[in-house]
Amino acid sequence: MKYLEDIRVGETTELGAHTFAAEEIKSFATRFDPQPFHVDEAAAAHSHFGGLIASGWHTASVCIRLIVLARLREEEAMRARGEPVGRTGPSPGFRDLKWPKPVYAGDTITYATEVIETRPVASRPDKGLVFARNTGVNQSGELVFSFISALFVDRRPA
Amino acid sequence: MKYLEDIRVGETTELGAHTFAAEEIKSFATRFDPQPFHVDEAAAAHSHFGGLIASGWHTASVCIRLIVLARLREEEAMRARGEPVGRTGPSPGFRDLKWPKPVYAGDTITYATEVIETRPVASRPDKGLVFARNTGVNQSGELVFSFISALFVDRRPA
Repeated sequence: MKYLEDIRVGETTELGAHTFAAEEIKSFATRFDPQPFHVDEAAAAHSHFGGLIASGWHTASVCIRLIVLARLREEEAMRARGEPVGRTGPSPGFRDLKWPKPVYAGDTITYATEVIETRPVASRPDKGLVFARNTGVNQSGELVFSFISALFVDRRPA
Repeated sequence: MKYLEDIRVGETTELGAHTFAAEEIKSFATRFDPQPFHVDEAAAAHSHFGGLIASGWHTASVCIRLIVLARLREEEAMRARGEPVGRTGPSPGFRDLKWPKPVYAGDTITYATEVIETRPVASRPDKGLVFARNTGVNQSGELVFSFISALFVDRRPA
């Protein structure tokens, strides 16, 4: 991870796109969110959604995967340039997770992350907190997913 | 799902317990959260966690599974008693997700859900909103996971 001092508010990273195939939707939901409209096309067709939709937690998990992969790629590039890489701390949690529209089987969701706040941690002079708004948008340009994440990062050594 | 009018603030449901085996932790994280301390015991031992820990999204996904299974069981029991079952609407999202302590390989997390608020929806006379605090506690009694969920439910037909 970059050091707190090298992270700019407004920095936006395109994380990539993911197409939610029906089989993958059912496989995730069978394991973690077995509601009828996530695991059964016929039941989904009769639900108020009118068709199979992905678990919101599936939409979220794919976003996390893309965030982590982007960070690992960035760290690899920093190491390749001989730059020091700060440690990524744990996430204390997040807020305001929203699923404003369903994700239907076959939808392609494009994810991005934008830094919205950075600040030092008063009790830990070697640490900072980075807040980011993470979003997913479908092929029609509609927002289907967003949340505000928080992450502890290292401050640049003096 | 029960109707809004039949759901009481303070109602608590024990959702069950889940033991996070190392293999399951690595399998989930390889797919969705491939950070070193979630996928590699040696790297985890050298991290600030000191050992393999579950992805926070894995802890969350198991909670969702147990919430959904409890609801499906409840609906089955209602149908067996000949009671009408209200439709469960989509979740508009949730707030304040926290991971106050790591979940280590071998930890057993016991989940519960407590209704903290119910209210009618002004714009939809047939719908209500139910807010619940969902928690996970480890074998030492420490809170490791919590979030506030929101869910649309039916109001009882007049």
